Amino acid sequence: MSEPAKTLEGWYSLHDFRSIDWVAWKQLSSDEREAIIHEFQAFLNKLNETQEEKVGSHAFYQIIGQKADFVLMTLRPTMNELGDIETAFNKTRLADYTIPVYSYVSVVELSNYLPADKDPNEDPQIQARLKPILPQWEYLCFYPMDKRRQGDDNWYMLSMEERMNMMRSHGMIGRQYAGKVKQIITGSVGFDDWEWGVTLFSDDVLQFKKLIYEMRFDEVSARFGEFGSFYVGTRLPQERISNFLHV
Amino acid sequence: MSEPAKTLEGWYSLHDFRSIDWVAWKQLSSDEREAIIHEFQAFLNKLNETQEEKVGSHAFYQIIGQKADFVLMTLRPTMNELGDIETAFNKTRLADYTIPVYSYVSVVELSNYLPADKDPNEDPQIQARLKPILPQWEYLCFYPMDKRRQGDDNWYMLSMEERMNMMRSHGMIGRQYAGKVKQIITGSVGFDDWEWGVTLFSDDVLQFKKLIYEMRFDEVSARFGEFGSFYVGTRLPQERISNFLHV
Amino acid sequence: MSEPAKTLEGWYSLHDFRSIDWVAWKQLSSDEREAIIHEFQAFLNKLNETQEEKVGSHAFYQIIGQKADFVLMTLRPTMNELGDIETAFNKTRLADYTIPVYSYVSVVELSNYLPADKDPNEDPQIQARLKPILPQWEYLCFYPMDKRRQGDDNWYMLSMEERMNMMRSHGMIGRQYAGKVKQIITGSVGFDDWEWGVTLFSDDVLQFKKLIYEMRFDEVSARFGEFGSFYVGTRLPQERISNFLHV
Amino acid sequence: MSEPAKTLEGWYSLHDFRSIDWVAWKQLSSDEREAIIHEFQAFLNKLNETQEEKVGSHAFYQIIGQKADFVLMTLRPTMNELGDIETAFNKTRLADYTIPVYSYVSVVELSNYLPADKDPNEDPQIQARLKPILPQWEYLCFYPMDKRRQGDDNWYMLSMEERMNMMRSHGMIGRQYAGKVKQIITGSVGFDDWEWGVTLFSDDVLQFKKLIYEMRFDEVSARFGEFGSFYVGTRLPQERISNFLHV
Amino acid sequence: MSEPAKTLEGWYSLHDFRSIDWVAWKQLSSDEREAIIHEFQAFLNKLNETQEEKVGSHAFYQIIGQKADFVLMTLRPTMNELGDIETAFNKTRLADYTIPVYSYVSVVELSNYLPADKDPNEDPQIQARLKPILPQWEYLCFYPMDKRRQGDDNWYMLSMEERMNMMRSHGMIGRQYAGKVKQIITGSVGFDDWEWGVTLFSDDVLQFKKLIYEMRFDEVSARFGEFGSFYVGTRLPQERISNFLHV
Repeated sequence: MSEPAKTLEGWYSLHDFRSIDWVAWKQLSSDEREAIIHEFQAFLNKLNETQEEKVGSHAFYQIIGQKADFVLMTLRPTMNELGDIETAFNKTRLADYTIPVYSYVSVVELSNYLPADKDPNEDPQIQARLKPILPQWEYLCFYPMDKRRQGDDNWYMLSMEERMNMMRSHGMIGRQYAGKVKQIITGSVGFDDWEWGVTLFSDDVLQFKKLIYEMRFDEVSARFGEFGSFYVGTRLPQERISNFLHV
Repeated sequence: MSEPAKTLEGWYSLHDFRSIDWVAWKQLSSDEREAIIHEFQAFLNKLNETQEEKVGSHAFYQIIGQKADFVLMTLRPTMNELGDIETAFNKTRLADYTIPVYSYVSVVELSNYLPADKDPNEDPQIQARLKPILPQWEYLCFYPMDKRRQGDDNWYMLSMEERMNMMRSHGMIGRQYAGKVKQIITGSVGFDDWEWGVTLFSDDVLQFKKLIYEMRFDEVSARFGEFGSFYVGTRLPQERISNFLHV
Repeated sequence: MSEPAKTLEGWYSLHDFRSIDWVAWKQLSSDEREAIIHEFQAFLNKLNETQEEKVGSHAFYQIIGQKADFVLMTLRPTMNELGDIETAFNKTRLADYTIPVYSYVSVVELSNYLPADKDPNEDPQIQARLKPILPQWEYLCFYPMDKRRQGDDNWYMLSMEERMNMMRSHGMIGRQYAGKVKQIITGSVGFDDWEWGVTLFSDDVLQFKKLIYEMRFDEVSARFGEFGSFYVGTRLPQERISNFLHV
Repeated sequence: MSEPAKTLEGWYSLHDFRSIDWVAWKQLSSDEREAIIHEFQAFLNKLNETQEEKVGSHAFYQIIGQKADFVLMTLRPTMNELGDIETAFNKTRLADYTIPVYSYVSVVELSNYLPADKDPNEDPQIQARLKPILPQWEYLCFYPMDKRRQGDDNWYMLSMEERMNMMRSHGMIGRQYAGKVKQIITGSVGFDDWEWGVTLFSDDVLQFKKLIYEMRFDEVSARFGEFGSFYVGTRLPQERISNFLHV
Repeated sequence: MSEPAKTLEGWYSLHDFRSIDWVAWKQLSSDEREAIIHEFQAFLNKLNETQEEKVGSHAFYQIIGQKADFVLMTLRPTMNELGDIETAFNKTRLADYTIPVYSYVSVVELSNYLPADKDPNEDPQIQARLKPILPQWEYLCFYPMDKRRQGDDNWYMLSMEERMNMMRSHGMIGRQYAGKVKQIITGSVGFDDWEWGVTLFSDDVLQFKKLIYEMRFDEVSARFGEFGSFYVGTRLPQERISNFLHV
């Protein structure tokens, strides 16, 4: 048996992707729509309070293309809070005009493939990475992924050393995008259908493509990366929601 | 032909995953909703009676994410009782406000890859494992799985000895989680689309991830494990159902 | 080119799996439901007449789990009769309260991998196997399957001798279950998406699991078997249908 | 780069598979249903006129099993005509009581793997095969297929000679079914999700199974054939449509 | 790690495929339908204005077969504009009578596998290819694709030189179709589920099949091409929309 990577876990994460049922939404009176938007803003305001208290964070983005109309990504210290937020969302009136299309359950994760010369529980930098306040950058990209286990390309049969070397080279590419792309890795083994979720933020949407394409030529991705669906979106700040939903 | 593993079977198992049709549910009057919840509590009370008589067991959990809103897992001595419970559930009024999203039919299974120095029919410990009263722990995790049959990674072409050795090392990992994670293996060859269902219980949801991730580096999982969808949830005790469904 | 197996074909077969639309069903008045059940019993009575005349056979089982609520399996001398029965079923009022979820079109098949020392057209035993009256046993199991054609595991590139040897050893396992499990093989090349359908009947549902699991260690299944979805059910005799549908 | 096969193309082809929405259909008055059938017969009569003028052909078959209730296969000199027919069909009232379930867009194709000692544009036999009037035989079978490109089984990396030899032996099997099965090959590279569609006609439905099963042992199919869904049906002549739709 | 290809990116691209809900559409009064078409024409006129100002382009085609009834392909300088157009479309009344069936998010891309002897930012030809005004040719073909990463057929593990040689030979085939087929390659790594989208235009629909089939024998496609669904359609100029929607 190969030595497993050691991981550190932080806040739990729920990505909740939904489409808008425009037909039903349009059938409402303008007053009803306004009341529903108002209630939804109150729901978001509660999330804002949690974020201000630094016991959670969230992001709200419009998704481009038919896969979804928006995503609400939420981070919380416990899995139970995620369930509560999901249920609270479902109980808002706006939810009646949305169609759930995809979701992802995971937990913020750091792994020891990176040099580990610090006590993670004490180190403020590591703590900040495990419990991140999500950046309010213009674009978001999300995709789930696995490490391949197929014939000669079986990540989990490699030695710790081989894996560490490959991950180090992989991390080098990522570092070139520091400042341009912020990356949140969430682990989902036991929680959802892929092993990891990757959430990227940037103010330049093209950097997502540049970064992921460059990494694809790296052995870790080329031989061992299996990828799910990709979602890309633009930030939907609270003050623009009313306009987004205006018909 | 390789020698098949010998298996012991206990209670039959049905995992019934459903989403709530919140839109229709909200359209009911508060009185109607209360009556429906009351009827559903009576349905659960009947299951409780069976459990108290130790001729069956069940678990009811909220599922996190869009895959489902809850799961009712039921164990019974016969397959027919599972069909009866499923039909009885469908006839409750609450079922009209749910959407079936996934189910799994299987039977509690122990295999002789574990040392077999006892008469299973007499041994109270083995009997308790074959007819388990499900723990009321805070979290549940469910996933179905197969043993791979692909090119050089064909589990069913290995000798009994090779399989036993690998399963023993696999069991060692599991034992490290004793007390933290309770695992129920159910066999589903001939009953459902995968060969096994795995149901885990824990009071610390992170232990699911730790256990499954560690096992993935073990040859049994790394080379031979094929996994279906993962469902994770939090316990929904009867006294909290009313609150969960309150709108 | 390898020599193809020779096959004998008998009655054509349709497996028609449906779920019940319980919500719509409950909205009917009790009188309407009774009239609909009465009409459906008349439909089944016609099938019974055909069976009594030995020019066809059928089976009606409740399916466990969400994949379906019941299956009607019908055998007839011609493909056209299957189309007529399907259409007749769709025209019953009960069909309006069902949702088609899966079906399988095939023909009862015997193959010459078994020793062939008789004239099949004269032999009453072979004729009985090609035009079988389905047993009224307590449990049914259905699954479709292919023989694999992948890299070194390509069934159709093996010589007739290799295939015959493997099928013989495979048949030996089956024979151990004689009396406990009745197996109907139907061929579906050109008729449906897999190459064969397998329908098993037993009075002990556990025998399905035992038989299929044991066979999986046999080279034919281990290296060459590809399996579709598994459906398991309990017999629903006509006198119990009313109770099954009673709400 | 291997030398590509040369192909000849004839009429464009649309297979339009639909299910009937029996629930909605039954809710109509008998007069309304009659009017709708009458309108649909007029739609078919227009197709008949085109066929009589030999500038197109079509076939209408009931499909067995739940995949569809019927298929309308249409051949026309241009792709635009197929779009027009599809739209015209959608505008009939009958279409409102159907659910589109599958379709296939392709073009009648002959390939130079067959001996080519004639000028195809002058040869009446080749022209008749490129612009075929579909036979009114009792049964139809349709399936799409690809040539495999996987590891050592990569059709498109073989030399022209290897491919020609294999196709010749494949054609020999087909020729044994001459008179019993009529085969129309349509190419769909660039038009639909598989590389070819295969449509077979016969007066004996068992010949589809015999032919396809025999071919599966031939190297072209055994190593290089990838198959999609199979649809089988019985002819629905215009005079029987009324009866088919009568409720 | 292999050296990644260098890419140039131009306008962002959204392919928005939809089916028409003919049943609902027919239920409208003729006046309502006319008003809705009028509103949609105004929506297209705005897109026309953008195109005339050369700050974007779009194409509107009827799709043949059941996959979709039409596609609106839009090119814009920013991802945000695509989101705005998608939302604006959803807010038109016509959208209420359409069903979203597929979409693709990507960006016009040129890669350095082609000889790069010019400064792309200055070169008007390259700029025209990065920000193309879409041709109004009679037929459109769209499909997404990946480069394979499987066993010995792993594109991303090849050296830059190997990839350049193969792409050059691939480009030679394409050049033979110059004037007959116009090809727009859009990159979608990080934006959608495949690595590229390919959009072809031609006045002769058969050229799509000829081009793609010929390329399939080239090593790049034969060994390394993985293809998604293919969509083919005929141009729907604004003056013909009214007729297309007339019932």
